[in-house]
Order: sequence, then C-alpha cells, then structure tokens
Amino acid sequence: MKKIAVDAMGGDNAPQAIVEGVNQALAEFEDIEIELYGDETKIREYLTVSERVTIKHTDEKIDSDDEPAKAVRRKKKASMVLGAQAVKQKEAQALISAGNTGALLAAGLFVVGRIKGIDRPGLMSTLPTVDGSGFDMLDLGANAENTAHHLHQYAVLGSFYAENVRGLARPRVGLLNNGTEDTKGDPLRKEAYSLLAADASLNFVGNIEARELMNGAADVVVADGFTGNAVLKTMEGTGMSIVEVLKSAIKTGGAKAKLGAFFLKDSLYNLRDLMDYSSAGGAVLFGLKAPVVKCHGSSDAKSVYYTIKQVRTMLETDVISQLTEVFASEEE
Amino acid sequence: MKKIAVDAMGGDNAPQAIVEGVNQALAEFEDIEIELYGDETKIREYLTVSERVTIKHTDEKIDSDDEPAKAVRRKKKASMVLGAQAVKQKEAQALISAGNTGALLAAGLFVVGRIKGIDRPGLMSTLPTVDGSGFDMLDLGANAENTAHHLHQYAVLGSFYAENVRGLARPRVGLLNNGTEDTKGDPLRKEAYSLLAADASLNFVGNIEARELMNGAADVVVADGFTGNAVLKTMEGTGMSIVEVLKSAIKTGGAKAKLGAFFLKDSLYNLRDLMDYSSAGGAVLFGLKAPVVKCHGSSDAKSVYYTIKQVRTMLETDVISQLTEVFASEEE
Repeated sequence: MKKIAVDAMGGDNAPQAIVEGVNQALAEFEDIEIELYGDETKIREYLTVSERVTIKHTDEKIDSDDEPAKAVRRKKKASMVLGAQAVKQKEAQALISAGNTGALLAAGLFVVGRIKGIDRPGLMSTLPTVDGSGFDMLDLGANAENTAHHLHQYAVLGSFYAENVRGLARPRVGLLNNGTEDTKGDPLRKEAYSLLAADASLNFVGNIEARELMNGAADVVVADGFTGNAVLKTMEGTGMSIVEVLKSAIKTGGAKAKLGAFFLKDSLYNLRDLMDYSSAGGAVLFGLKAPVVKCHGSSDAKSVYYTIKQVRTMLETDVISQLTEVFASEEE
Repeated sequence: MKKIAVDAMGGDNAPQAIVEGVNQALAEFEDIEIELYGDETKIREYLTVSERVTIKHTDEKIDSDDEPAKAVRRKKKASMVLGAQAVKQKEAQALISAGNTGALLAAGLFVVGRIKGIDRPGLMSTLPTVDGSGFDMLDLGANAENTAHHLHQYAVLGSFYAENVRGLARPRVGLLNNGTEDTKGDPLRKEAYSLLAADASLNFVGNIEARELMNGAADVVVADGFTGNAVLKTMEGTGMSIVEVLKSAIKTGGAKAKLGAFFLKDSLYNLRDLMDYSSAGGAVLFGLKAPVVKCHGSSDAKSVYYTIKQVRTMLETDVISQLTEVFASEEE
C-alpha cells in the first residue's frame, strides 16, 4: 500500500478540487492510501468515504501571499507543514500540495530533507512538445543560482525520472544553452557541458536551444534555476497571450469568426491540451528523500488526480531509493 | 539625406527580398539614400533604378554557417564587411543585414566600434504584446555574460530607443527577474536592481516576470544576454509550436475543421501578425557608433522595408548622438 499525504487546503480551488481529485484516484488505484490534511468539515463536504482515506484535521493553512520560509517556520500546524512532517516521520511516503510554491519548497527542504549527496534539489516538470511526448526540465526555479555540479546532478535526476516514471529507455539529456555548438555558452554552461559529456551513465545529446524545446530536441533538459524559471514562464505567458489574442479575435470578428470557432472547436481544444499538459502531473521538487509534488495553483480535480497518479508511479518504481543509492555511492 | 548601407547578400531570400525592400523604402522615403553591397548582376535583376541608390559590387559574402569572427577577419571584401567599413569611414550612416548574426555582431564591434563608455553593446528587438504596443528587450544574446553595470547601460539604451524611435514619453523600464518582489533574484539581479532604482533619469518600474512580458508589463525590459536569448527563443519556439499544432489539427480535422479555418481566417492572421511583428523593424546591435541592424534571416521585402524605416527614424532622431553625449559625460 502506498501512503500519500495531500494538503487539502492549497490552491485556488481548495478543498473541493483537491478532494474530488483524491476521490477519483482512490476509485482508480486500489494500492494507494491518502491522508488529507485540512479542515475536516470542509473536506467532508466533498469526500467520498473510503477505508483508504483519513482526514487529519487542522485549522491552520499557509496562504498564497505568505512569506514562504517564515510561514513554514511559524505555522507549525498548517496543513502543508503537517503533511511534510508525516513524510518525515515515515507515516506517509509522499506529499502533494497545490498551495504556495515557495512554502512547499521550504517544507520539502527543511522538513522532508535532501537525499544525501544532493546539493540543491531542483523543481522539475514534464512540459509539452508538439508530438505530445513531452520533456522533463529542471531546475525550473527552486534555486536562483546553480553551479555546473548542480546541473550535472539535475541530469542524473531527470534521467532517472524519465526512465522510471515516463518509461523511456536511455532518455536523451540536453543542456539548455544559447547555441547548439559544443563551445557555446558562459563558463557555467561550458563546465556543465564537460561534466555531462564525461558521464557515461547519461545519454547526453549536447546543447539545446530554447527554440527547439517543444520540438522534442531532448527528453530531459537541464538548466540553472534562473534561466529555467524564465523559460517556463515565457512558455506559459506566450501560450496564454496567443489564446487571448485568438479569443478576442473571435469575439470581435463577428458572426463569421464565431461560426469558424464553432467548427474549429475540437482543434482549439487540441491547442488548449497542448499548453495545459496537466496529464503529466505536477512539478516535482526533486532530490528530496521522498516525492514532494506541486500541483498548479489553479488545478482542477483532474490535475490533482494526475498528480496522485504520477506520485504513485514514483513510489512504485522506487525512483527515490534508486537515486539515494546512486548518490550515496558517489559520496564514497 | 540619410545614407544607409545595406548588405544585399544576407539572409534566406537574398538578394531578391533585400532589393525589393529597398525599392519600397526608396519610393516611400525621399530623404534616404541606399548603398547596396553585393553581386551587381543579381542586384540589378530586382532593382528599380533611382538616383538615390548605388550598387557597390563585390563577389564575396559571409555564409550563414561561417564562423563569425573568423569570417569578418578573413573575408575582407564580403558585402557585410564592406558595408561596415563604409559606416566606419562615414560614407554611410548605418548598416542593415539579414545575414549571419554572429558575423554582424563581430563586424559591428570590430569595424564600426562601440560608443565611448559603453562596455558591451546589446542586441535589442521590439517584441510583441497582446495589445499591439510591443516592448523593447535587451540583451537578446550579443553576450553570454553580463554584469549589473551592463544591465544598467541597457536600461539607458532601451529607454532612449523607446522614447526616440517609438515615441513613448518616460518609458517604463523593468528588470527581468524570477519574481516581482524587490528582493528577488541572484546577486546579479539584486545589484542591477539597486543601480536601476538609484538612477533618477530612468522610469524604473521594478522586477518583471517573463510571464508578464507579452502583457506589456514594461516598455523596456533588461536582461543578461544568456537569459534574454533563452526568453526570445522560447517565445519564438512556443509561438511556432502553437501555430504548428493548430495547422495540423485543421489539416487532420476533416471538412468541419477546414470550414472553421476558412471562416476564422482573419482571426488567424491576427495571430500570425502578433507572433511575427516585423513591422517594428529588425534587431539593433545597440551601443555602437552607428545603427547596425539585423533583419531576420527569413525576412521578406516587407521586413526589409520596415527595418529601413526603423533605421531612418534612428537617424532622424539622432538617438546615437544623444547616447554618445550621455555616456561621454558619465565617463568624465
């Protein structure tokens, strides 16, 4: 039985979307147990009763505008913090939250703790490609700065994830850089390139330009947290802007445009699915002793369901134990 | 009379698109003279004869896969290099090319030369916003690394451009960062924030996240060349990917989707225009003693025309002389 702690109070649609996602996951997967942290009365409103779900009541929660590290330190009874404590005490094997990202990072680092040998856990998501297969990218912003050594660790982490959770054999690892030639980049990139090229356990395919990310140039893309964050937010912003321009063009385009949109409805849904991509699950704070996964703040029940599914696969494949061994042997 | 040197041999559609763009610009603007550098016979095929255009024949040209600095050093008679020489010798006041970007950067830096007091000229483009007004961003990748001092210079350069060329009063300057709070970012961003906030000549509006770029969060956005390059390429890649998904959905969506696309044609054109945005001109290598502007490699005649228009405005407003004075007085 896999036991997953879920913060019921995080995100824009909590607790309803969270609890409904939990209901779906419990109905689908018979090998999981869920601990729901949050306001019992509110949770009960939406929860389908099951033997495999327990509510851990608390009145306290971390808000989206709370200062992350401070909130984790001071709100010791917050639903997210209690969930992290449960993982620390091995009462649960993983933590999911749609709440304050910074606070979840802090709870992950300070409560759950790093895998021995990993210096700076990175935030990793599976992001969309045109062909639908997706790519994993990290660090998406857990850190404002990274060394080449961190980038090398991200390559190992991402590679294990792609192989175990996404089922890819010998995932192609790329280094995000300002050109594809071997000699490109600043000193950080050049040093990272050497470390990646020298590691025979990786299927390193060289430098990748941001223009080629959605064309599936690599299965795993490593970046420092500052650049990764900028790239992720640019993808999101560009996607949203295009949808907005299209919507407003349809709205102001008169009857002809509206008719066109009606006929094109299915195709426009494809577009939405491309940019949404929640079926791949949430963003993993990767490099911790247990899976700690962030659902998007605006997650609906479906996204929560997919994140539980993702965490279940991480537990099933035991990817964290594998990584723990790899990094322990490197330390020696 | 404004005299502009144009490399007729650079880009995918050279010399036809280049020469046709020149024809349009000469017809529209009576106060410009063009020097066309390249193969005279090929240029003559497309050129509308005018008193205000001269052909400077050369057989040599820089190819898109030439190693930039080496090509500029060795191919002394290449159309791009001769154009840069003409600017250096004040025979022309500006240079336009759709050729090898790295080579144009090298020709700009080593032949045309930097404005005194400017350490690292940056590559700047006007990029699209949802409302159509656009924003200027630099450095888009002329440099792989920048200091906070460089970012401050980019803010001054971008501000002068937005005011002079785009006609904005007190352009809002933002710093690309991984969050909007004052305290965000790595040491480079924190130091740049202090420099920008302390400069009363700037209308500094604080940190900007990449997600808000296309919403027009600032008129001028400064970034280091590595991040700026990644953001630009992500915007391009995401835009192209979305268009591709939409096209393929229409193609495989049967008669209904095709009918929808027909009715939505005008709205889809709006989308294309949003992502194209060539009416704002080319990418300026900014901080040199004269305007040196890169047209996109795939430029058509219209983009070349718009780039000539942009350069004409730069010459008319004398933005380079203004900047030269500003940076000269800072040096003292």
